[in-house]
Amino acid sequence: MKFKMMYSFLNSDIKNIEQTLEETVHAESPLLHQASLHLLKAGGKRIRPVFVLLAGKFGTYDINIIKNVAVSLELIHMASLVHDDVIDDAELRRGKPTIKAKWDNRIAMYTGDYLFARSLELITKIEKPFAHQILADTLVELCIGEIEQIKDKYNFEQNIRNYFRRIKRKTAILIAVSCQLGAIAADVDDEIHQKLYRFGYYVGMSYQIIDDVLDFTGTEKELGKPAGDDLHQGNITLPVLFAMEDAEIRKEIVKVRENTERAEIEKIISLIKGSGAIEKSLTVSDNYLNKALKILNDLPQNRAKKTLNDIAKVIGKRSF
Amino acid sequence: MKFKMMYSFLNSDIKNIEQTLEETVHAESPLLHQASLHLLKAGGKRIRPVFVLLAGKFGTYDINIIKNVAVSLELIHMASLVHDDVIDDAELRRGKPTIKAKWDNRIAMYTGDYLFARSLELITKIEKPFAHQILADTLVELCIGEIEQIKDKYNFEQNIRNYFRRIKRKTAILIAVSCQLGAIAADVDDEIHQKLYRFGYYVGMSYQIIDDVLDFTGTEKELGKPAGDDLHQGNITLPVLFAMEDAEIRKEIVKVRENTERAEIEKIISLIKGSGAIEKSLTVSDNYLNKALKILNDLPQNRAKKTLNDIAKVIGKRSF
Repeated sequence: MKFKMMYSFLNSDIKNIEQTLEETVHAESPLLHQASLHLLKAGGKRIRPVFVLLAGKFGTYDINIIKNVAVSLELIHMASLVHDDVIDDAELRRGKPTIKAKWDNRIAMYTGDYLFARSLELITKIEKPFAHQILADTLVELCIGEIEQIKDKYNFEQNIRNYFRRIKRKTAILIAVSCQLGAIAADVDDEIHQKLYRFGYYVGMSYQIIDDVLDFTGTEKELGKPAGDDLHQGNITLPVLFAMEDAEIRKEIVKVRENTERAEIEKIISLIKGSGAIEKSLTVSDNYLNKALKILNDLPQNRAKKTLNDIAKVIGKRSF
Repeated sequence: MKFKMMYSFLNSDIKNIEQTLEETVHAESPLLHQASLHLLKAGGKRIRPVFVLLAGKFGTYDINIIKNVAVSLELIHMASLVHDDVIDDAELRRGKPTIKAKWDNRIAMYTGDYLFARSLELITKIEKPFAHQILADTLVELCIGEIEQIKDKYNFEQNIRNYFRRIKRKTAILIAVSCQLGAIAADVDDEIHQKLYRFGYYVGMSYQIIDDVLDFTGTEKELGKPAGDDLHQGNITLPVLFAMEDAEIRKEIVKVRENTERAEIEKIISLIKGSGAIEKSLTVSDNYLNKALKILNDLPQNRAKKTLNDIAKVIGKRSF
């Protein structure tokens, strides 16, 4: 993994975080413990903790303090994934609800709740009410984002502004806040943590746009699901919105529903790829990335800054 | 409603809280706003806000500060109800369609998440990290309680200790913390808020036991659902555990499943009522209540103390 090489100087701290994650999800309830651990062991890039730690390097870095923020944000990310899975599972199983499947959903919902609650326990170890407020506001935005995503499904009338607002809430804010809270936990000046917030926000926007592009350009093996799955599920992303500017392509796209045949989806993927929408999306992602790098420029010179720069660039160019 | 007469001196503050509740659930997302408002308008005793306010009277009472705690705790209660309804597949709550029934499970789950997040925004307005920590710990316990309740369903091997631990997490802690955080927001000494916590805890235990008794002794009209519904759903409560001490009754009870016929449930209700289990449960509730009243005795004399005393007694004796 290319990422990890970029912050090898954080290796021991990353290990510490991994261990704290495991300790944190430990629950008296074996069921809850197993469910949480299962999720944890499934892995993940731990990109949010990495941003927290790097941002912390701009101030007084104490791993024993900052790890609470890092683990807290990873838990929130995990919790939102669990709740997402509940939603998606529910759809896949539509029409055939089994007791066993229901059981899993209940456990998943409360496991998500539990991880949220644990994340709050950790963040409140940072004795700064301001930090807690930021996290609470972030959670509100995340929830609104989730609901809007449900509402906007198969809504082909939405515009690009809807899309930006949604990915801001869904992805960018949590990365922005990872940077900001890492910095706050390290006692930096307001100006620095606000800049780091904006850096994280722009990186997050770029990251999500690339993600949405990969859904069309990736192979089934790389994606772990068929290409075009987002669209098939009703998620209208930037490449789709750009492609729909062509009236002929639009006519085809607006017909997509859950029961649309795979062959039809393949045809639409080709149309989107041939429309220039991918390139236009990548340009938008690049613009965000450049904004991110520009903000970094204003920050004090240190090793973390160099690493943030490298990570941002890799995110902007990543194929997988 | 008898409750309300006991704290008429709080009337304008209760109105303020009701209004703040409405303002708080206001969301940019119309869907989220409607779902939250629907829940809010379904009513409820607002018992947690009342405890918050009364506890606040032991210190420096400022409604503009303390209302954040009161609304926060009511929102957490509401959020947990929404998630419960998803789990229980409940169609009705307080005689009105649940969010799950009116919209769907996805909306219900995220509405719950949203209410949690809003509640955190409010509590973090109290700039005391200690208060935030208490709430975070409480949420962890609530989640464990929910999971244990799922795990313990139709588990006829559980003992009374399981039951007490479960209702502690499910009900008593949130009432205890309502009292404690109300007091903390009003800057009382540690000793006072700890006592108020214990008062709330004992009242909460008594309250839940009575609730579990009423499930057998109430009429369908009073309950809004058939008597014995808890048992039918697999919730093994104190009267059931006491009744199962009789080996013959136990044999009948352990057969109960979701698909058990109504007539069979009615028969078991009669067995439980005839076993002395109701009376024994009420005695346990009384014991908790007496402990609550004893702690109140140690607290400074004021109008709130008198009211807490009255409320505790009504809770202990309530029929509905």
